[in-house]
Amino acid sequence: MLGAGNVGAEVARILLEDSEELGDRIGARPELIGIAVRDVSAPRTVDLPQELLTTDAEALIEAADVVVELTGGIEPARTRILSALRAGKPVVSGNKALLAQHGTELHAAAEAAGTSLSYEAAVAGAIPIVRPMLDSLSGDKVNRVLGIMNGTTNYILDQMDSTGADFNDALAEAQRLGYAEADPTADIEGHDAASKVAILGSIAFHSSYTIDDVYCRGITGVTAEDVEAARDAGYVIKLLGVAERVTSETPDDGSGVSGAPSTTGVNLRVVPTMIPRQHPLAGVRGAFNAVFVEAENAGELMFYGPGAGGAPTASAVMGDLVAALRRSVAGGPAVAPSFHALLPATNVDDVRTSFSLTLLCPDRAGVLAAISTVFAQHGVSISTMQQRDLPDAPERPGEGLAELRIVTHRARNADLVRTVETIRELDEVLDLRGLIRVESAD
Amino acid sequence: MLGAGNVGAEVARILLEDSEELGDRIGARPELIGIAVRDVSAPRTVDLPQELLTTDAEALIEAADVVVELTGGIEPARTRILSALRAGKPVVSGNKALLAQHGTELHAAAEAAGTSLSYEAAVAGAIPIVRPMLDSLSGDKVNRVLGIMNGTTNYILDQMDSTGADFNDALAEAQRLGYAEADPTADIEGHDAASKVAILGSIAFHSSYTIDDVYCRGITGVTAEDVEAARDAGYVIKLLGVAERVTSETPDDGSGVSGAPSTTGVNLRVVPTMIPRQHPLAGVRGAFNAVFVEAENAGELMFYGPGAGGAPTASAVMGDLVAALRRSVAGGPAVAPSFHALLPATNVDDVRTSFSLTLLCPDRAGVLAAISTVFAQHGVSISTMQQRDLPDAPERPGEGLAELRIVTHRARNADLVRTVETIRELDEVLDLRGLIRVESAD
Repeated sequence: MLGAGNVGAEVARILLEDSEELGDRIGARPELIGIAVRDVSAPRTVDLPQELLTTDAEALIEAADVVVELTGGIEPARTRILSALRAGKPVVSGNKALLAQHGTELHAAAEAAGTSLSYEAAVAGAIPIVRPMLDSLSGDKVNRVLGIMNGTTNYILDQMDSTGADFNDALAEAQRLGYAEADPTADIEGHDAASKVAILGSIAFHSSYTIDDVYCRGITGVTAEDVEAARDAGYVIKLLGVAERVTSETPDDGSGVSGAPSTTGVNLRVVPTMIPRQHPLAGVRGAFNAVFVEAENAGELMFYGPGAGGAPTASAVMGDLVAALRRSVAGGPAVAPSFHALLPATNVDDVRTSFSLTLLCPDRAGVLAAISTVFAQHGVSISTMQQRDLPDAPERPGEGLAELRIVTHRARNADLVRTVETIRELDEVLDLRGLIRVESAD
Repeated sequence: MLGAGNVGAEVARILLEDSEELGDRIGARPELIGIAVRDVSAPRTVDLPQELLTTDAEALIEAADVVVELTGGIEPARTRILSALRAGKPVVSGNKALLAQHGTELHAAAEAAGTSLSYEAAVAGAIPIVRPMLDSLSGDKVNRVLGIMNGTTNYILDQMDSTGADFNDALAEAQRLGYAEADPTADIEGHDAASKVAILGSIAFHSSYTIDDVYCRGITGVTAEDVEAARDAGYVIKLLGVAERVTSETPDDGSGVSGAPSTTGVNLRVVPTMIPRQHPLAGVRGAFNAVFVEAENAGELMFYGPGAGGAPTASAVMGDLVAALRRSVAGGPAVAPSFHALLPATNVDDVRTSFSLTLLCPDRAGVLAAISTVFAQHGVSISTMQQRDLPDAPERPGEGLAELRIVTHRARNADLVRTVETIRELDEVLDLRGLIRVESAD
């Protein structure tokens, strides 16, 4: 093992405590021969036998049959994993940042050496999702993966939804309870979820994506008003990680029958999104994670569970480790999944989603017509529009003020962006706020 | 392939349509060499090439590398699967009745021949649950599995909950919509779910159970009043399949510290159960299925999706088939899960759950005391008691009538049964109804 942090210490504990039962399942009793750490005398969350700790990672890899990497970060993890794989040793890792950046290189090294690289713990903690996607859905065709893949942001948004708190208060509460780190940037800006989307999207579409392929927006701009408006409309705002097949409708060839849509690529994104309260993802509360999969034959599947934590994440590591050890004992070749970049990552322009937005307008004739015209000109169709009269603005007494909440049908992202740009310029629009994607049945 | 029914025809369609893409994932293009059917000219849900159909199942098995059995029923499926396994051919099956009855024999045959038997489609349709339990949770310890594993009964109970319909009307509606069969016995009496509990419990506890080990109660006795009472109390009634580790508290040795609970066995049951509306299983609507797993390290996981249907179930079959073909191409040995009957199936007596029940009593002094005394005498502790005054019974004018709704803390099933027997005998109790198990945090 490399690393004895929160997760590593739990994995070591399980290996030491349950080695007999694990032996029954593996076909031979697993032996933890050592744990490479930076400082053998650092405090640990679990008491570990001192004689297992070493600072010599290279010698430990050399001596091991299977390597478990739980150090995190790019280097020296990358170099060490590569050296283990090149020596034909199966590697189990929970390092999402590394996999989201250098996954292609690591997979190629595993394939070339005929060994395995597994990383269930890198996506959505304890939830079995990597293996089900690779194995159970291997005879199906995935169209879309939607995931709540960061517990910190889900906790914050859930607090905002259930208590009406604003973002900063909910963040402070999350920090107080240990759900958010002192520097919460990686979570609240969506970077952590973006790594997971890159990994999960690669698996779902048998292609190879990195975090740079993921369009990423965090939740710092989500206001208490956005959350309340969503609730009023029967929605809840979640930070969704999405990997989605993008299709282009074949143009009508004159026969009146347009062709079957063909896949042009895959869009990967992390964005705050309104989802209907009846959607299974809407019920995912607190720091829990869930991944919702839409597949051609299976239909709609959801995988739910704890997305972080020492013991839960260790459970995912152990699943990979037992599988690697079983193979090691049984002596069969590793079956490497193939990632041959079949589907290119596409930018967000061609992605079609619904949007919700709120406009503040003077309450006078012609306003609705002006706004509707802009939507129509850009090919964006309005699904629902709700008008609410507001008290007069102090700087415009007597004029009347109205709030318009608009939800569009599915529209190309690029068309919506141009619509919004034009709407902002209108004299009839005083303010535009609460622009949020909506996932729904449409 | 054996069988070309609803699921079989979909598997054939996928194999024929997607053979190129499947070939990429398997390492060689899969060839469907034939489908054994009883009548080659029977109507099918999918048009299949006539030259693939044959009535000679034995010759087809002889010629095949991998056998997919989707005929259902015990014989001739059992004999055919055994002959394929004994010839070293991997078998994929969706036959829950067969597996729940003869699983031990089939697994032993696969293990002896060094080949694989897989059956993801036999439990909860498209939901990947068999493989995640076998692989992803192989390094963890499962304590409990709770599943909504029958879509027909979930549809009926969901209708009763959302419309107030009684059982017969909801069943008729389910039949009209095709969610229930003309003879719905296997579904509504819980037999279908019981097969799945036997299979899933075997996997979860690395032991070998049959349907005869499963205590089974259907939903025919669930009334509109039960559903309403549950809703009033913040619960929903679901037909839950449960496989649960049963522990016995080691008796206090005089030191004042009682020992750690030790596992005495596993209880398998299918029973209508009240679960809190916030529980993730409560949100499983319509004909969907879900399996909720409580594991020592992973914590609470849930797997959700369509539990039936041709294409969804075919997706599960395809996952198993691609895995079997990959192994066949790569040439490694099959890693058979071990079922060595480690934990005996226990009867329901020692199972500890909460219960809800409703009593109709005369509204006079001493009634509460008499009832409370009976509970206390049998060691059943009351969690909540709600009293509601009712109009006088016509045959007892002027006496006053009260309805008591009682929810107990967790109690031994046997103690609760004795409590109920005694309560029924009390002069102070006119009627006892709505006796239903409750799963909750307690």
